[in-house]
Amino acid sequence: MPKKIRLGILGGGGDSLIGVLHRVASHINDNYQIVGAVFNPVMEENIGFAEEIDVSTDRIYVDFETMIVEEMKLPEDERIQVCSVLTPNFLHFPMAKKLLENGFNVICEKPMTTTYEEAKILQETLEKAGTVFAVTHTYTGYPMVRQMREMIKEGALGNIHKVDARYYQGWLNPVIHEKEKRSSTWRLDPEKSGISCCMGDIGVHAFNMVEFTTGMPVKSILADLNYLYEDNQMDIDGTALLRFGNNAKGIVRSSQVATGEENGLAITIYGDKGGFRWEQENPNHLYVMSDDNPMQVYKPGHAYNSDLSLDGTKLPPGHPEGIFDSMANIYLGVARAIRGEEYNDGEFPTMMDGVRGLNFIEASVQSHKEGNVWIALDS
Amino acid sequence: MPKKIRLGILGGGGDSLIGVLHRVASHINDNYQIVGAVFNPVMEENIGFAEEIDVSTDRIYVDFETMIVEEMKLPEDERIQVCSVLTPNFLHFPMAKKLLENGFNVICEKPMTTTYEEAKILQETLEKAGTVFAVTHTYTGYPMVRQMREMIKEGALGNIHKVDARYYQGWLNPVIHEKEKRSSTWRLDPEKSGISCCMGDIGVHAFNMVEFTTGMPVKSILADLNYLYEDNQMDIDGTALLRFGNNAKGIVRSSQVATGEENGLAITIYGDKGGFRWEQENPNHLYVMSDDNPMQVYKPGHAYNSDLSLDGTKLPPGHPEGIFDSMANIYLGVARAIRGEEYNDGEFPTMMDGVRGLNFIEASVQSHKEGNVWIALDS
Amino acid sequence: MPKKIRLGILGGGGDSLIGVLHRVASHINDNYQIVGAVFNPVMEENIGFAEEIDVSTDRIYVDFETMIVEEMKLPEDERIQVCSVLTPNFLHFPMAKKLLENGFNVICEKPMTTTYEEAKILQETLEKAGTVFAVTHTYTGYPMVRQMREMIKEGALGNIHKVDARYYQGWLNPVIHEKEKRSSTWRLDPEKSGISCCMGDIGVHAFNMVEFTTGMPVKSILADLNYLYEDNQMDIDGTALLRFGNNAKGIVRSSQVATGEENGLAITIYGDKGGFRWEQENPNHLYVMSDDNPMQVYKPGHAYNSDLSLDGTKLPPGHPEGIFDSMANIYLGVARAIRGEEYNDGEFPTMMDGVRGLNFIEASVQSHKEGNVWIALDS
Amino acid sequence: MPKKIRLGILGGGGDSLIGVLHRVASHINDNYQIVGAVFNPVMEENIGFAEEIDVSTDRIYVDFETMIVEEMKLPEDERIQVCSVLTPNFLHFPMAKKLLENGFNVICEKPMTTTYEEAKILQETLEKAGTVFAVTHTYTGYPMVRQMREMIKEGALGNIHKVDARYYQGWLNPVIHEKEKRSSTWRLDPEKSGISCCMGDIGVHAFNMVEFTTGMPVKSILADLNYLYEDNQMDIDGTALLRFGNNAKGIVRSSQVATGEENGLAITIYGDKGGFRWEQENPNHLYVMSDDNPMQVYKPGHAYNSDLSLDGTKLPPGHPEGIFDSMANIYLGVARAIRGEEYNDGEFPTMMDGVRGLNFIEASVQSHKEGNVWIALDS
Repeated sequence: MPKKIRLGILGGGGDSLIGVLHRVASHINDNYQIVGAVFNPVMEENIGFAEEIDVSTDRIYVDFETMIVEEMKLPEDERIQVCSVLTPNFLHFPMAKKLLENGFNVICEKPMTTTYEEAKILQETLEKAGTVFAVTHTYTGYPMVRQMREMIKEGALGNIHKVDARYYQGWLNPVIHEKEKRSSTWRLDPEKSGISCCMGDIGVHAFNMVEFTTGMPVKSILADLNYLYEDNQMDIDGTALLRFGNNAKGIVRSSQVATGEENGLAITIYGDKGGFRWEQENPNHLYVMSDDNPMQVYKPGHAYNSDLSLDGTKLPPGHPEGIFDSMANIYLGVARAIRGEEYNDGEFPTMMDGVRGLNFIEASVQSHKEGNVWIALDS
Repeated sequence: MPKKIRLGILGGGGDSLIGVLHRVASHINDNYQIVGAVFNPVMEENIGFAEEIDVSTDRIYVDFETMIVEEMKLPEDERIQVCSVLTPNFLHFPMAKKLLENGFNVICEKPMTTTYEEAKILQETLEKAGTVFAVTHTYTGYPMVRQMREMIKEGALGNIHKVDARYYQGWLNPVIHEKEKRSSTWRLDPEKSGISCCMGDIGVHAFNMVEFTTGMPVKSILADLNYLYEDNQMDIDGTALLRFGNNAKGIVRSSQVATGEENGLAITIYGDKGGFRWEQENPNHLYVMSDDNPMQVYKPGHAYNSDLSLDGTKLPPGHPEGIFDSMANIYLGVARAIRGEEYNDGEFPTMMDGVRGLNFIEASVQSHKEGNVWIALDS
Repeated sequence: MPKKIRLGILGGGGDSLIGVLHRVASHINDNYQIVGAVFNPVMEENIGFAEEIDVSTDRIYVDFETMIVEEMKLPEDERIQVCSVLTPNFLHFPMAKKLLENGFNVICEKPMTTTYEEAKILQETLEKAGTVFAVTHTYTGYPMVRQMREMIKEGALGNIHKVDARYYQGWLNPVIHEKEKRSSTWRLDPEKSGISCCMGDIGVHAFNMVEFTTGMPVKSILADLNYLYEDNQMDIDGTALLRFGNNAKGIVRSSQVATGEENGLAITIYGDKGGFRWEQENPNHLYVMSDDNPMQVYKPGHAYNSDLSLDGTKLPPGHPEGIFDSMANIYLGVARAIRGEEYNDGEFPTMMDGVRGLNFIEASVQSHKEGNVWIALDS
Repeated sequence: MPKKIRLGILGGGGDSLIGVLHRVASHINDNYQIVGAVFNPVMEENIGFAEEIDVSTDRIYVDFETMIVEEMKLPEDERIQVCSVLTPNFLHFPMAKKLLENGFNVICEKPMTTTYEEAKILQETLEKAGTVFAVTHTYTGYPMVRQMREMIKEGALGNIHKVDARYYQGWLNPVIHEKEKRSSTWRLDPEKSGISCCMGDIGVHAFNMVEFTTGMPVKSILADLNYLYEDNQMDIDGTALLRFGNNAKGIVRSSQVATGEENGLAITIYGDKGGFRWEQENPNHLYVMSDDNPMQVYKPGHAYNSDLSLDGTKLPPGHPEGIFDSMANIYLGVARAIRGEEYNDGEFPTMMDGVRGLNFIEASVQSHKEGNVWIALDS
């Protein structure tokens, strides 16, 4: 049997939630062991955190560059095999790029980069490197999301003519209406967050869900964003109308001021043979509709599910699987890819997903700024 | 106590569902008695239907014009007081107009007219007539819809910044994909159905729900419609982006090819103090959200509900009220108006609702046809 | 086409909710006209109410006995054909008995009588009379309840081995804990309410639902009731274990102190081929489960539904039907029976349902009082 | 910061689901490291599995006895600190007993023992040993279950008068109806499974949930079990009526032939001030009811939650937490206890929970066998 994969971590120390999520996910299928890290830019905290979570401090590095240098000195069968990049957004690009240039596999948090330009450069870098690269569009790891993708591939919905994806959160509502609060929120600072807040942070997840489940690339979009206050420079709500190459149309709706909503990602897909409804906050139910028959409710772990879906289910039906499990499924796919085992192309989001995402975000802002016109996405 | 109101009916004979709905609604609160009608253009069937439902055949008329002439000969306290117009859409305008001109009160099915032009003429006619006129936007009769309106009026949501209304049905899916079927469906024939199918038939209900609940008039819209096939002349799916006068934005989403959906009208409304979620297929639950507190589920018939909501609830909590009851609430409001009793301005949809609706429908088609540009609505 | 059926009403005047429910239900399918009544024991209010709801006062009688005498003088084709008994519980028996003895059809509110003894006498009276008799177990009129019954008849669940019915309300919670309040509530007074409060008022509905849907008679029961306070003489909560003749078992759970519950009637049924789940507060969804397939959600009005279910559906899918519609379905079945038309044996609850109910209620109290022993029901 | 706790594992090798669940849970909060194990009675598979999951094979032992002997030779700060017992049910007692006698902390799968007699002996052993002992009533680890317990402690429901717990599964339906299948199912073999199947396996979870959330010990029970077929010796369905010391009553309903049900554990609790409803298959929603106010929906991770609930929530609201997380919360509590840190008495189920469970199971069978009589539970 294979030994555990040697995992490096950049960022995610202390109370970082994203750190917890990645560590747990890496443990869940017994595939990974953390062997090196820069958890924190302050070396003392970096070491302290390693001790706290029982990672050997021998390979806790002072900074990213040192990590690369030192790891490259190690024999290949001791060296970090894959590195998770959990640092602030603007660091994703330089770190991922250098990791790829040195032959490391990479698991990169989303957004993959802060600009579409960078995303395309990273894509070229990956092509030269030929390693494994995953962007953590975590929600694609849910068994029922995978089930949608597989059923659509097999024609369960026939020709799709309508897709409607939503991502509504409310967490900016207590912040946005007071000038002082909104001007001191880093998410609303273009310096730190890039060109877009709402579309960049969550609209892009809805967009990814559209392309992941349907397998249909979006051809062009028309967007209307909302900034609510004149002094606010970042969109905190936005809708994008979608056109696919054929007669199908779609919508991506996202908001961070949908007061009282928690993490309302959802998608509905309609084709000439049937329809799907799925909601992240109730992730184990997939509603399957058709013209003439009773609605069906698919749940994880049954024999009627697709292989890809079953592969992402660890327990018998009726035992709710949550977000840790979803992320764990992505880590499992990456493990298979690194080991050269067979895997399904939906097992983890690839760099192409990251590239598409940045293309979408920049096109959204452009469409809005140019007066709500259609912007073609690159094919 | 008052005697029952003398009700006339135009259309709605035979198996007509809309006929059943109006008759039942007129009975539910013991306010109306049908005294005259033209149920059917064929006199034999007209009489037959009157006998079937035990309406005296003395005042079953051969056609609408005859009805007007004969009723005007009767003394005022025997004459039809209010007439329900349930005929095909293109007849709504001429019938309603003549009824108003002769001093009758009118309950008119939706769409009120087939063009915005006609709608404005009807509005002028009503102003001269000074009678009661209701358009049956039936869904505004639900207790929880009324509850939303009242709570918003009282400031429960604070300043509203986002509204998202949906009306998804799937009934055109089995029709639209076969040329023969779609070319023989009257709803898809502009001669019979007017300028728009999806926006005109159901999108306008979602639009009305937005304005009814929020009390905020939509200032301009940008629409993208879908016709799916080149030979199809009528929209069967469409999305309209909405702008209100302030910084609030909204969406109206509608579809008749949302495969497997039945009658999916729903609305979410977000303000700085809270949010609402309501769905027609589960009409007795109103979800009330806020930043910091547990979500609340309001149900009809409780002391915590507004007067307008309670007025529309006939039974104790836990006894589901359905669409008949909703329509009945509207008939109740009209009865009060006819009798000169006090009533709340949300008790029945007025002609202004009809006028707004036509404005919305035509603006939707115009926005789409002109390349998805913003079209201002009349104020 | 048939003329409307001549309906008499006993009780249900003024603000009576049960009066509203029966009047509306009688109107909904255009089958009935109220021609005679004793709405109220005070003649002045009796007349006033008749005028209020536009019933001719010619046949508003001073009391029940007078009504019988006077109606019997009328020619048969003018006489009341069917009489709805909506008076206080202890009057159901004498009124229904005399009506039957004089050849009237009867629609009787529940509980049919206050003792099992009376119920059996009434049954004998009906056998001699040979007229139509319905007990308003209203919930059997829901389309999806009828659907369960029909599917079970056709073998959809195979051999049933488990039934679990619940009826939880909370309305006695604000009353029961204060001595003064509980001693002044008529429902808790055995003089006025008979032998049982909770089992008699709502447990019996759950029991009826078990027998109506499964078609399996309960053979014996073991009950444990709760009176909560020593000075309280009436059960306000109770559970009955059920045994059927075969190896099947069941539960009837009921409570009026289930704090915050509204009208929580529900049933689950499990057989070797499948299972059903239905809840009165969400009456348009029937959940159909099986070992190997996705759960299905049946809704009213679709071609896949049984004839009996479709017959009780007046509008297209997605338009919620409520409690008025359910009661109206029962009135429709009675109309058919009176007219000698064909009807399904599930269209309205018969006297046998009433007899079984009283048997159940008395057996519940007996089982509890004798120390939770099994009591056989009459076969 | 503390080093990881040294964890031993007995059983749970190969494809064992319970093995996965415990390993993942032990990883989730970075508190444990597996240092020794007997995963499998066949040494070759034992070693193979250790290699597969990257556990050092140095301390993989040939059997349980050897493990005890060898571990005791190690210095205390290298020795296994806590051992998870995941072996077949009949081994729980001898293993747990010996572990306690040698001073190990224990995490024991459920049922803790196969008889109440053994349970009481184990309890005495624990008293002498003075170590930490947890039984994995996993469902008590859900944030919203903890929230119920805390709110009840603080009086949110007032005096509780009614508790209704359900655990319905359907997995035995495809097995029970064929003689050959049911006679070859180990769960239905008293030699392997003990005195009870349904009550012992899942009824006891419902019972534990009743006592865990309410804090009220059950005083006596009356049970009716179902064996369905004469040759079947084990209950596959059963209901227990509960009496608490005061006027409160309750029900435990459980079934393994509830066709199509997956893992339907649920509880409702009613007191004079309010009511709770919670379902394991939708574990992140706690419904809070009261006489006069709208129902509230509590979800994990909000400031309004209790400390114990928040402690079991790792991510922000809206990110579903599942069964791994629930088990992980229990491991976290055990870690705190082992390290001598402060912890809440609801953080993990103690031996007393195990003892109560066995008492309940045996009393259930006794009540049924003696003709459905009340059996007092030990206090």
